[in-house]
Amino acid sequence: MSILITGASGYVGQELAAALLTTLPSSTVTLTDVVLPTVPKSAAQHGSRAQCIEADLTNPSVVDSLITSTNRYDTIYLLHGIMSSGSEANFELGMRVNLDATRYILDRLRTVTPGVKVVFTSSLAVYGLAPSGYIINESNFPAVPSSSYGSQKLIIETLLNDYSRRGFLDGRAVRLPTVTVRAGKPTQAASSFASDIIREPFNGRPAVLPVAKETEMWICSPATVVRNLVKAREIPAEKFGDSRSVNLPGLKVSIAEMLEALESIGGKERRELVEERYDADIDRIVQTWTPNFDTKRALELGFVGDVSMRENVEMYAKSLGSE
Amino acid sequence: MSILITGASGYVGQELAAALLTTLPSSTVTLTDVVLPTVPKSAAQHGSRAQCIEADLTNPSVVDSLITSTNRYDTIYLLHGIMSSGSEANFELGMRVNLDATRYILDRLRTVTPGVKVVFTSSLAVYGLAPSGYIINESNFPAVPSSSYGSQKLIIETLLNDYSRRGFLDGRAVRLPTVTVRAGKPTQAASSFASDIIREPFNGRPAVLPVAKETEMWICSPATVVRNLVKAREIPAEKFGDSRSVNLPGLKVSIAEMLEALESIGGKERRELVEERYDADIDRIVQTWTPNFDTKRALELGFVGDVSMRENVEMYAKSLGSE
Repeated sequence: MSILITGASGYVGQELAAALLTTLPSSTVTLTDVVLPTVPKSAAQHGSRAQCIEADLTNPSVVDSLITSTNRYDTIYLLHGIMSSGSEANFELGMRVNLDATRYILDRLRTVTPGVKVVFTSSLAVYGLAPSGYIINESNFPAVPSSSYGSQKLIIETLLNDYSRRGFLDGRAVRLPTVTVRAGKPTQAASSFASDIIREPFNGRPAVLPVAKETEMWICSPATVVRNLVKAREIPAEKFGDSRSVNLPGLKVSIAEMLEALESIGGKERRELVEERYDADIDRIVQTWTPNFDTKRALELGFVGDVSMRENVEMYAKSLGSE
Repeated sequence: MSILITGASGYVGQELAAALLTTLPSSTVTLTDVVLPTVPKSAAQHGSRAQCIEADLTNPSVVDSLITSTNRYDTIYLLHGIMSSGSEANFELGMRVNLDATRYILDRLRTVTPGVKVVFTSSLAVYGLAPSGYIINESNFPAVPSSSYGSQKLIIETLLNDYSRRGFLDGRAVRLPTVTVRAGKPTQAASSFASDIIREPFNGRPAVLPVAKETEMWICSPATVVRNLVKAREIPAEKFGDSRSVNLPGLKVSIAEMLEALESIGGKERRELVEERYDADIDRIVQTWTPNFDTKRALELGFVGDVSMRENVEMYAKSLGSE
C-alpha cells in the first residue's frame, strides 16, 4: 500500500500522514510539500515507512518526476493549496496552485497510472450564500462559489467527476467543514480564527475574533476529519453514483458556543485572551458560508459524524498535555 | 458599438450576427471562426459593418492579435466550441477548445480590456440526471454534468462568475436549450437529430431518429435563442445578483409532438422520411438531459419565452420558401 500526500506539511496533512502510518501497518507514505515535510512526531516510530519530499507542484517537471509509472501509488491525497484568504488576496497564485497544478497532477496521474484512486480535499466554500435556514445537501442546492478559492475547488471537483466518469481516475472529493481546533499556527484561511480563538489562549497567547459572536459555523474536529479522509479511500467507487463530491459531516456551532467551551474547559483567563476586533474582509467571506447541512449522503457512504464542541476542545487540551 | 462573435461560422453564430447587424444600426460586428466566416446572407446589405476573420482560438498568439487594447470590443459573444458528441468522442480536443481556449480568451480580455462584457453560450448539459419530473431552476439543483461537454461549460461558467465578482469582466452565461429547428447540416451535437428530423425531410432528405419517440426534450426555436442572446448584453450587470448563469426559456416537447408538427405542416411524405434507428451512445447522453425547467429567473431578467412547436416548424418551413 503506497500513498502520496500533497500539502503534507500542513496541519491536516500531518495528521493524516500520522493516521495512515499508524493504522495501515503495511503502508508506505510519501509526504510532499513546497516546504520539506517532516514525519509527524506521533508517527515517529513508523518513520521507516515514510518518505519526505520537497516539491513545487506548480512545476510540471517536478510533478513528472514525483509521479511515474514505475512508482505507482495506490492512493493520492491532494491536500495542497492556497487557502481562502490567500486565494482572494492573490488571484494568480490561487489559480496556479489550486487549479493549474492540481489539474496537471490529475492529467499526469491518468496518463501514467490510469484508474488510480485520488482523494481531493474540497471545501464547503464551493457553496455561496444560501437562503437563511436552508439546509443544504448534495442534491438540493447549486454550488455557486462566492470566492476564488471556492471556484477553484469546484472546478477541480468538476474535472475529478468527469475523469472518474470516463474511468481516467477513481476520484473522491470530500468537502471539508471548517477544521477546528487546529494545532500549529494561524493560517491564511479566512476561517483561521475559528481555531485561533481556542488554540492561542490554551497556549497563553491572545487571539482575535474578527466576526460577531452570533455567527454560526459548520465545523469539524481534526480527529473526525482525519478519520473521514482515511475512510474516503475505502469506499467502493460504485457507491458514489453520479457524483464523487461529498459534504463531510460536521457540527453547527456559534462562536458564542465555542467561547463557552473554551471558558468551561480552559477557564476565564483563557477566555479573556480572545479580543473581539471586527474585520470586514474576513466577515464578508465567512458570512457567505452557510452553517446548515444535511450530511445523510456522507453517513450512508460510511463517513462518521463529529463530536461535540466540548469534546473537541477537551481533545485539544489533552493533546497539549501529552506533548 | 463593436461586437466580436467567436464560432461565428456556426448556425447560431450566423443568426446572431445577422440579428446584431440588422437591429443595431451603428454596430460593427467581427465574425471569427476556425473556418473563415461569411457575412450572413440575410444581413448582406450591412456587410460594410461586418468583418470576417479566420482564427484558431487554441493558438494564444492568434487570440492576442484578435483582442488588443487598441481594438476594444463592447461585447464579446463566445459561441465557439466542440459540441457534445464531439467532446465525448475526443476528450483532449474538447478540453483544448471548450476549456483552455475559452479561458485564455477570458484572461486576455481581463488583461487588455478589463470589465468588458462577455456573453457565453453555456448549455443545460451542465445538469446531469434529475429525478423524474423534478423541475429545475437555478437555485434548487446542483450542476453535476454527465458529459465532458457539460463539465467544460460548467468550468467556464465558474470562471466567468468569479471574474465577474472580482470585476475582471462583466460576464453573462446563458444556458441554451436544444436549439431546433436549426438550418444547415447535421452537427456533432448529440442533439443534432432534434433538428435533423424536421429540417432534412423539409429538404427532401431522410433523417434518423436515434431515441424513443416518448423522449421529452427542452428545446428552443432559433429565433427565440437569438432574441435572448441579443438581450443578454442589454441586462444591467447588477440584476444578475450572485450568479451570472441563467437557464434560458424553452419549450418541453416530446419527439412524438415534434413528428406530429412535421406531419401536420409538412405532410405525411415528409414524416415518412424519418427513420427510427436506435443509437445507444446518443440515447445515453440525451436521457441525462431533463426536460423540466422553471425559467422564472430568465423571464424576470427580461429574456423572452419560446413559441409553440407548431409555430417553430412553420417558421422553418417559411424560411425555406423565402430563400
